Amino acid sequence: MRMQRIAFLLIVLVTVGGVVAATAPASAQDDGQAVPIFGIKIPRGYRDWRLISVAHEEGNLHSFAAILGNDAAIKAYREGKLPYPDGTIIAALHYGHVPSEENNKVFGNPQSFVPGPPTNVQFMVKDSKKYASTGGWGFAHFNIDGRPGDEALLKTCAPCHAKASRDFVFTRYAP
Amino acid sequence: MRMQRIAFLLIVLVTVGGVVAATAPASAQDDGQAVPIFGIKIPRGYRDWRLISVAHEEGNLHSFAAILGNDAAIKAYREGKLPYPDGTIIAALHYGHVPSEENNKVFGNPQSFVPGPPTNVQFMVKDSKKYASTGGWGFAHFNIDGRPGDEALLKTCAPCHAKASRDFVFTRYAP
Repeated sequence: MRMQRIAFLLIVLVTVGGVVAATAPASAQDDGQAVPIFGIKIPRGYRDWRLISVAHEEGNLHSFAAILGNDAAIKAYREGKLPYPDGTIIAALHYGHVPSEENNKVFGNPQSFVPGPPTNVQFMVKDSKKYASTGGWGFAHFNIDGRPGDEALLKTCAPCHAKASRDFVFTRYAP
Repeated sequence: MRMQRIAFLLIVLVTVGGVVAATAPASAQDDGQAVPIFGIKIPRGYRDWRLISVAHEEGNLHSFAAILGNDAAIKAYREGKLPYPDGTIIAALHYGHVPSEENNKVFGNPQSFVPGPPTNVQFMVKDSKKYASTGGWGFAHFNIDGRPGDEALLKTCAPCHAKASRDFVFTRYAP
């Protein structure tokens, strides 16, 4: 079961470049565990952050995501500013991508997909000095029980995100 | 072209029950046009509201949505309170659901879908007195140029939303 979860997460990370990162002042972090390598904890209050965009990954993932940003992230996105300034945090809230039987019954057509159970939450945090060796970004991954991703997982984040054309970030702003 | 757009919107509304609603104190409304029947304008600042969930509709729609809520909506969702209290506003920001060639190139697999151009924004506003004849909800639809949906379109909202099991609302909260 644990192996399955790890395998799933590795697939997510390798194929989606999905490991993102979070650092933040200690006071803005949750009391949970920090991820290895980048030392990032879950930022407090991230579920209240504003929307950057949404995403959907198929392949082996069947994943639905909401991408949220802290104030620095939203400001940078809206101004089209690159590279992202230090303090930027981007959160990816991942869920399963599942059909809604309830909606399809009303619509009379199997067309509606909604978030299934949450699978993980990932963060990217910009700190150009602290994370200089990974493009200025720290990356974090947490399972829904708050357990951080392991070192092997976190090592896959930066190489994939380095292939994104806009300062390691795949997600564009949805107006 | 205009007929195509109207046909598309009607499909959206009829099949997705997608007409949602927005009323609000006049001071919180934009200066644009109001929709017919419900007299709702675009609420100011709705793009800064917090996330309720995400949605994806196939069939003839190929639609991607972010569902946001004002403070009253978020509070009610988090408390699991039904019916939604007066003042609740739920916003559905609709985009095309399109493949990301950019991401797929990096991932080496045609698996990544992102929001395409925005198509419309819809609102549901709870005012149990003002909108008593439609379950206490007013509905609004705006094209991306701010032009409101017409009367024929808006008449389709309430009958479909009445079939949702939770006080006319299809969308559940994504934790």
